[in-house]
Amino acid sequence: MFDLLLRNATVATMRDGAPFGLVPGGAVGIAGGKVAWIGPDGQAPASGAREVWDLGGKVVTPGLVDPHTHIVYGEEGLIDFEVLSQGGQRWDLEPRGGGVGAMVKRTRALSEEALYAASRARMSRLIANGVTTVESKSGAGLDKEVELRLMRVSRALGRDLPVTVVSTFLGAHGLAPEYAGRRDDYVDFMCREVLPEAVRQGLVDQVDGFCDKVGFSHAQMGRLFAAAKAHGLGVKAHSDQYTDFGAGAMVAGHGGLSADHLEFASLASVRAMAEAGTVATLLPGAHFTLHETRKPPVDMFREMGVPIALATNCNPVSSPTVSPASQMHLACYLFRLTPEEALRGFTVNAAKALGLSDEAGLIAVGRPADLAVWETTDPRGIAYAIGGAACLGVVKDGVVVHRAAIPEFARS
Amino acid sequence: MFDLLLRNATVATMRDGAPFGLVPGGAVGIAGGKVAWIGPDGQAPASGAREVWDLGGKVVTPGLVDPHTHIVYGEEGLIDFEVLSQGGQRWDLEPRGGGVGAMVKRTRALSEEALYAASRARMSRLIANGVTTVESKSGAGLDKEVELRLMRVSRALGRDLPVTVVSTFLGAHGLAPEYAGRRDDYVDFMCREVLPEAVRQGLVDQVDGFCDKVGFSHAQMGRLFAAAKAHGLGVKAHSDQYTDFGAGAMVAGHGGLSADHLEFASLASVRAMAEAGTVATLLPGAHFTLHETRKPPVDMFREMGVPIALATNCNPVSSPTVSPASQMHLACYLFRLTPEEALRGFTVNAAKALGLSDEAGLIAVGRPADLAVWETTDPRGIAYAIGGAACLGVVKDGVVVHRAAIPEFARS
Repeated sequence: MFDLLLRNATVATMRDGAPFGLVPGGAVGIAGGKVAWIGPDGQAPASGAREVWDLGGKVVTPGLVDPHTHIVYGEEGLIDFEVLSQGGQRWDLEPRGGGVGAMVKRTRALSEEALYAASRARMSRLIANGVTTVESKSGAGLDKEVELRLMRVSRALGRDLPVTVVSTFLGAHGLAPEYAGRRDDYVDFMCREVLPEAVRQGLVDQVDGFCDKVGFSHAQMGRLFAAAKAHGLGVKAHSDQYTDFGAGAMVAGHGGLSADHLEFASLASVRAMAEAGTVATLLPGAHFTLHETRKPPVDMFREMGVPIALATNCNPVSSPTVSPASQMHLACYLFRLTPEEALRGFTVNAAKALGLSDEAGLIAVGRPADLAVWETTDPRGIAYAIGGAACLGVVKDGVVVHRAAIPEFARS
Repeated sequence: MFDLLLRNATVATMRDGAPFGLVPGGAVGIAGGKVAWIGPDGQAPASGAREVWDLGGKVVTPGLVDPHTHIVYGEEGLIDFEVLSQGGQRWDLEPRGGGVGAMVKRTRALSEEALYAASRARMSRLIANGVTTVESKSGAGLDKEVELRLMRVSRALGRDLPVTVVSTFLGAHGLAPEYAGRRDDYVDFMCREVLPEAVRQGLVDQVDGFCDKVGFSHAQMGRLFAAAKAHGLGVKAHSDQYTDFGAGAMVAGHGGLSADHLEFASLASVRAMAEAGTVATLLPGAHFTLHETRKPPVDMFREMGVPIALATNCNPVSSPTVSPASQMHLACYLFRLTPEEALRGFTVNAAKALGLSDEAGLIAVGRPADLAVWETTDPRGIAYAIGGAACLGVVKDGVVVHRAAIPEFARS
């Protein structure tokens, strides 16, 4: 007896073998919050199901995993939008009152309640767009109090909403204005004061930093990562987004989970990532928004076997979106990922990027029943439409937590 | 006494004067299907309203007008997606089994019932995305029977759904395979056989054609437009998309409603359009999908006062989308329209492009109450997110025909 049976479904399991691990004309049986059975529709065990959802041939995928977001922040970045959409570059933002500095200012000004409310609305929309596991970074505070506040909000969202939240400490996102000219002191402050307190309060799962000529050096990242590892936390970095800074190799050298962005990653970085098993998390939203023309070395990732993940990178400045399907579409057009690679990027490979490889990103018997249903009968259709296909439903731990009606109208 | 009062609204009337014609903290009263009152919230006449919708500060705009779609077609173009997203060009489509020819073949194969069902689903999603008036072209049949079938479906959608449909005859979209090498004969056939029959059956409002080196010549378009005018129909053309073919000037010379695409439009074409009052309808979806790098001459349009409209260009090959907000976002980034120009492009200027200037595209007392409500409190926010803001509701002729819940979740 299943608790829930999804039948008449095009099941994209994402297991190896067939493209998309596809089971056409399939069904998925769920019991006790886990996937209990996958097979051809009509061959499901006769014991029945408490609830049946006939998908009418529509695609069901693993619940999406969004492995890189800055979803906890204050107000939206409409100034950034105006500057960037008119052809402005990232260095034009600050003089116009935008950019990361302004985002930090807006976020610091919010109470925890207001920050929670804004982020909860955003996160709810992300869930409705098919996401069942999400990484949520701090980094919009850059001081002790606000960084902790951001991570508390991440934890609260994971507690209050039907989504698994991986909380990442990104104190080294930028340099707090209070530490101008004292970058080393800032890193020390983050390592000695903020991170240990976040660990003590149980607020943090991973540690991230911005490794760049205008960000933090290899040595500074090394100290941050050493502190992270001392607490048993996985590490990752914003890497080689604006220049080849050897950041991909640096992350790999520390056994990092993922290096993210990577437009300027060198062959040496890709090789090091392949050897270390570090995932390449690509962020097409920022690529598009910042008018980047240099493409991440996708062919090198493929040739050397570096898993490619995708993420919304949800943030108000360079990637204002909570729609993974829109990012799959962009990744196909901008980075020439295939539709299958794009979906793999938001499922199995995203799970790898978060160190969750045994728990998320596949539809397989015995795994948690985290699923998403799409308004298409072909898995390529998720990334096909500009903006991506509509998500029709979300199952989290075996429970239908969201169901969107296909709009139907009659002339009144 | 209003039938409906939208209150606590950020009203983007799109009237001249303030940016977006904005009435912040406003309300809109509706009676008898028309806008009866616009003003500051709290100053609405005391007579009350049968139904009140508190928008919580959210933006209400005119119902969107989508002035260029090929929304009536058969199956989706997943082959086109695979070819184009991997960097393929439009001339790579046909050899791979895609392109307009394949779309025509797929569409011809469908019964009228199947075509209606597929198009109705697509149109319903377009309405749910904020559209209350849409142009729908034939042109996926290229023979008498199927072209008439496509226009019948357009009419049926306008009859059955809460949307105003402007039906456009686009027999001159391409050359039917049966007429290979006999382009003049094909145009004559369309002018003498198909168009008159469409007019006789009341299926057509406007006439469009593909004016290009690889499409129809100025002389052929002239004969088509003469036939259209003999039936009292407005004219327009797919113009200067791939080369400067002088098509913008050609359309303007015929007093055309709009010239569409226009990436390669010359100064002479822009000047002629300005003099004739021909609208420039820009199509960012096809621009993006076909990897076009040449931009339409937006600065020239601005300087010479050519109104700029935008459209989804919904079609399975080069613009698979029913989301106007996604196109506003693209238009800002790709063509550097301002957020206000983008919204004007899908409202007042789109109405002009369809010759509806007195009936659609504004929120104004006495006009039909066609409205859309958006998940943002700032009208710039509609185009801000990648993929565009979510549409929360649609009012057609004073009736709330669609209302989308903001997703809310609780941990089960």
